[in-house]
Amino acid sequence: MQHRKLPWSLPLGRWLKEYSADTFVRDCVAGVVVSIVMVPQCMGYALLAGMPAVYGLYCAIIPAFLYALLGSSRSLSVGPAALISIMLASSIAVLDPQSETQYIHYAVNISLLAGLFLLAMSVLRLGNLTNYISVPVISGFTSAAALTIMASQLKHMMGVDIEQGLDFGHTLLVLFQSVGQVNMTTALIGVLACVGLWFFKSPFPVFIRRLKLPSWLEQALSKSGPMVVVLVSAVLVATLHLSTKAGVSVVGDIPAGLPSLSGVSVDLVLWKQLAMPSFLIALMCFITSIAVSSSLASKRRERVDSNQELLALGAANLGAAFSGTFALAGSLSRSAVNDAAGAETPIASVISAVCIVMTLLFLSSAFHFLPLAVLGAIVIMSVFSMIDVRQFVRCWRLNRADAYSLLATFFAVLIFDIEIGIGVGIVLSVVLLLHRASHPHMAVVGRVGDSAHFRNVERHDVVTANSVVAIRVDESIYFSNVQFVEDFILEQCASHPSARHIVLIFSSVSFVDTTAVDALQRLIEKLRDNDITLHLAEVKGPVMDQLQKSTFLSLLEPGQVFFTTDEAMRTLTASRQKAPPRKT
Amino acid sequence: MQHRKLPWSLPLGRWLKEYSADTFVRDCVAGVVVSIVMVPQCMGYALLAGMPAVYGLYCAIIPAFLYALLGSSRSLSVGPAALISIMLASSIAVLDPQSETQYIHYAVNISLLAGLFLLAMSVLRLGNLTNYISVPVISGFTSAAALTIMASQLKHMMGVDIEQGLDFGHTLLVLFQSVGQVNMTTALIGVLACVGLWFFKSPFPVFIRRLKLPSWLEQALSKSGPMVVVLVSAVLVATLHLSTKAGVSVVGDIPAGLPSLSGVSVDLVLWKQLAMPSFLIALMCFITSIAVSSSLASKRRERVDSNQELLALGAANLGAAFSGTFALAGSLSRSAVNDAAGAETPIASVISAVCIVMTLLFLSSAFHFLPLAVLGAIVIMSVFSMIDVRQFVRCWRLNRADAYSLLATFFAVLIFDIEIGIGVGIVLSVVLLLHRASHPHMAVVGRVGDSAHFRNVERHDVVTANSVVAIRVDESIYFSNVQFVEDFILEQCASHPSARHIVLIFSSVSFVDTTAVDALQRLIEKLRDNDITLHLAEVKGPVMDQLQKSTFLSLLEPGQVFFTTDEAMRTLTASRQKAPPRKT
Repeated sequence: MQHRKLPWSLPLGRWLKEYSADTFVRDCVAGVVVSIVMVPQCMGYALLAGMPAVYGLYCAIIPAFLYALLGSSRSLSVGPAALISIMLASSIAVLDPQSETQYIHYAVNISLLAGLFLLAMSVLRLGNLTNYISVPVISGFTSAAALTIMASQLKHMMGVDIEQGLDFGHTLLVLFQSVGQVNMTTALIGVLACVGLWFFKSPFPVFIRRLKLPSWLEQALSKSGPMVVVLVSAVLVATLHLSTKAGVSVVGDIPAGLPSLSGVSVDLVLWKQLAMPSFLIALMCFITSIAVSSSLASKRRERVDSNQELLALGAANLGAAFSGTFALAGSLSRSAVNDAAGAETPIASVISAVCIVMTLLFLSSAFHFLPLAVLGAIVIMSVFSMIDVRQFVRCWRLNRADAYSLLATFFAVLIFDIEIGIGVGIVLSVVLLLHRASHPHMAVVGRVGDSAHFRNVERHDVVTANSVVAIRVDESIYFSNVQFVEDFILEQCASHPSARHIVLIFSSVSFVDTTAVDALQRLIEKLRDNDITLHLAEVKGPVMDQLQKSTFLSLLEPGQVFFTTDEAMRTLTASRQKAPPRKT
Repeated sequence: MQHRKLPWSLPLGRWLKEYSADTFVRDCVAGVVVSIVMVPQCMGYALLAGMPAVYGLYCAIIPAFLYALLGSSRSLSVGPAALISIMLASSIAVLDPQSETQYIHYAVNISLLAGLFLLAMSVLRLGNLTNYISVPVISGFTSAAALTIMASQLKHMMGVDIEQGLDFGHTLLVLFQSVGQVNMTTALIGVLACVGLWFFKSPFPVFIRRLKLPSWLEQALSKSGPMVVVLVSAVLVATLHLSTKAGVSVVGDIPAGLPSLSGVSVDLVLWKQLAMPSFLIALMCFITSIAVSSSLASKRRERVDSNQELLALGAANLGAAFSGTFALAGSLSRSAVNDAAGAETPIASVISAVCIVMTLLFLSSAFHFLPLAVLGAIVIMSVFSMIDVRQFVRCWRLNRADAYSLLATFFAVLIFDIEIGIGVGIVLSVVLLLHRASHPHMAVVGRVGDSAHFRNVERHDVVTANSVVAIRVDESIYFSNVQFVEDFILEQCASHPSARHIVLIFSSVSFVDTTAVDALQRLIEKLRDNDITLHLAEVKGPVMDQLQKSTFLSLLEPGQVFFTTDEAMRTLTASRQKAPPRKT
């Protein structure tokens, strides 16, 4: 199993030395297949981000090269991503841009800041920051974002031209009010596109598989649905003149050629406004990308270095900013296609980028008559699988607190907006964590039969002594949980009025901090005032070292530190007869 | 041991029924002794808060009655407190009040909001909120605040009239620049007051004890230092006309009589500005008061109910606001005097309040010529013991992380200000907690001799098997630490290339969440790809229940769940010979 913690590196060194003509052929096939999926999806996600469709294609060129150079995943396909696009649209809507130029200006600056945040996180080695956000919170967020995305695309499907925010309820309301203005031709195209996409996604691959075609051709054909729908609809609209005669909104003129590299001017006032949304976009970019790349890597028995990924994603987003386009991330659906189509190395992504360049140079006029309804349909069908009801059911059965935090995040996104939603999710995660950290598991234990084993009295049929209460602390003791530990012990004293000795079993305590030692020292005195002696058992080496450095052990006397619980119980129950009765 | 969790109550019911004439006499003595300490201290802390001296006395009347009625501590003495006063002064300084009336208006509103925050925390049962702030952070804050307080009083001691913020470095700089304007008479009075206070604090009580006076007289005499210094200095200044002839600043006219109860007008704009500082003052009021009252209560084998305390402190601060004065808290020094002087019940505090009323009615003219330098000296000598170097030394020896957070809070207070300092401390506490919660203790274990006991290979001389690695997880597994757990296991696989089985010992795992189950399921597959089988041992009942609700156990196969580690090791090492060799 490969496991190295390198500093940043050019990961291509790892695969370049064993690169062969054979590998190149497989990469080429995968690259072409991915680009067939990518072209329509990029344009759809650009629409979702509120940007002109062609900017989605720009996202897939320079950033893809940069990721291929720096990224540690071999098959991650970076480019426009649904979650990032909707967050971008939501952040820019708040700023109320007055023109398309200003809108693009905001988008470019968000990409820039998100890229800088990712690089900063890489420099600060914050690759494990995502550990502090739980999977249920991300799941709740993703499902609600998918619904919001779908709602936002309905206006394109209905052919109504309305100004809408990205708040789910309000969007539905506005759409409902504008039902009278639906362009029937557009709606029909949209519905047909959905049916077509569904056909290519479900029954068609089954059919194709029966033909026993070569694997690369089977892959290419079964993923060609969106491209076919795009081309057929564009041809239909063009030949039937639907955009002029029936008012079907189309993509319109696409500037042929490549995006021009441009500088981004420093605008501190704007950056201050954009800092928070950019940070959240950077975080979400990282969370979603690392999830995809690590699941792909584990299939190949590789490891993704999270700090290297931060670097590569940061560079890719800066690449997007300098190409004048919007923020991006690793895409689950395209990466899965890339992997299934046999991509061996990042060269596959480079081939995809070359295909996109070709499309821009030679095919851009073909997309002029592409109806927006079709792009909307592509987005809706792409994000459908992001709605994850099964995860909720699992959480509900496995751990109720997880289910509640999933629901809270889900409804926060739907009721407020995307950013408040993810904020609620993060705060919830931290609060849950704090709560758990302050409620360690503790148990009163008793002897199992005549053995030297001790188990929780609530779960096992065990023997206990009247005068000695043995309490196992199942976690390290530190400032946030020591109060809980103390309360538990005092409660046990209250419910065992004949107790003369308390034995704290430290088998799971691997650490005590200063606050804990202070509190335990006070506890010794409180117990002594009630004629109860505190003892310890099974204290680990490092904890004993810590206690020896304080006055704890001298305060503990006549309490003792026993090697095992068994020893403690034998010694203390034997001495019971000699001790004077406890005062009441 | 008394231990009840009552809802809010009038705790006086507990002691009123056993109240006797004898108790009353003891309470009276304690009350009078405390009031001797209290009068000078209240005026000093008022000065520290930037308020006219008499407002400190107002703090000690109605709030004291309210606390006596509602508080669960029998001997806590509430009233002006050094930390609260300096925080108040620091918060108001930021707002740049234009007149004394406005200054008092701000102070009253902060008391009001702090009172409301405390009541809200009581209603929300947030009595254990303070668990999330570690003792070292509070210690660092207190020591730095003490230094800031002492620096702020130097101007009174030097007799220079300067405008100063409450930032430590800047204060010292300004004082240094104004050394030329020092009023020598004032400085002399200040130094003499310090010497006098020191004399009454250290050598005098030893001398008194030798006289074998009745205990109450001994107590009263040994605590009379500040009062004697106050009266002697006032008489000296008055008879020598030092305030007019030598320019010694004095307290000046004190309005005779009691504070008038007044309403507080609702001013939402101001409240918004004051919300954060008021919240921090409420928090600090609670933290310091609960620390004092619970240490006093544990001496008496009583328990302080933290939510009841929040209620009582909230009511006391509201009482201060409606008396037109400033925020207060339980005072460590006065409560200790109260306890030592024999206070049995809150009646002692009521007696003190009555003494303060008497002072206001009949003695206020006596304080006219009291030099501010003497009040400054009283404050400086009172807070001297708040500088706690020993705690730092303890932390340094016991737990380095605690020592660093103490230092960080200490310097944040000195370099920035009181509020940023406490903010830094709280954030540090939470970050430390998150960090600890994501770094559980884990150990590879081996068999101790021929026994059924297994211990950490790094600490004990134990026997391990080549093909089986047993790993003990010493904490519950949930979203913030599962990545760490996974990384640890994968590292062990990498460093044990001949391992075929991994046994995870769950003896300390009392909880797994959905994120953890997901990650462990992925781990099973990752290990399987490397021809390693995962097994569990010593799984607790509730964890087993959780795993049974998921697909974990079916994914685990052929891995098994063993009852004991011993059983796991015997079974797996026995089967070693039969299994095919591991692929590399």
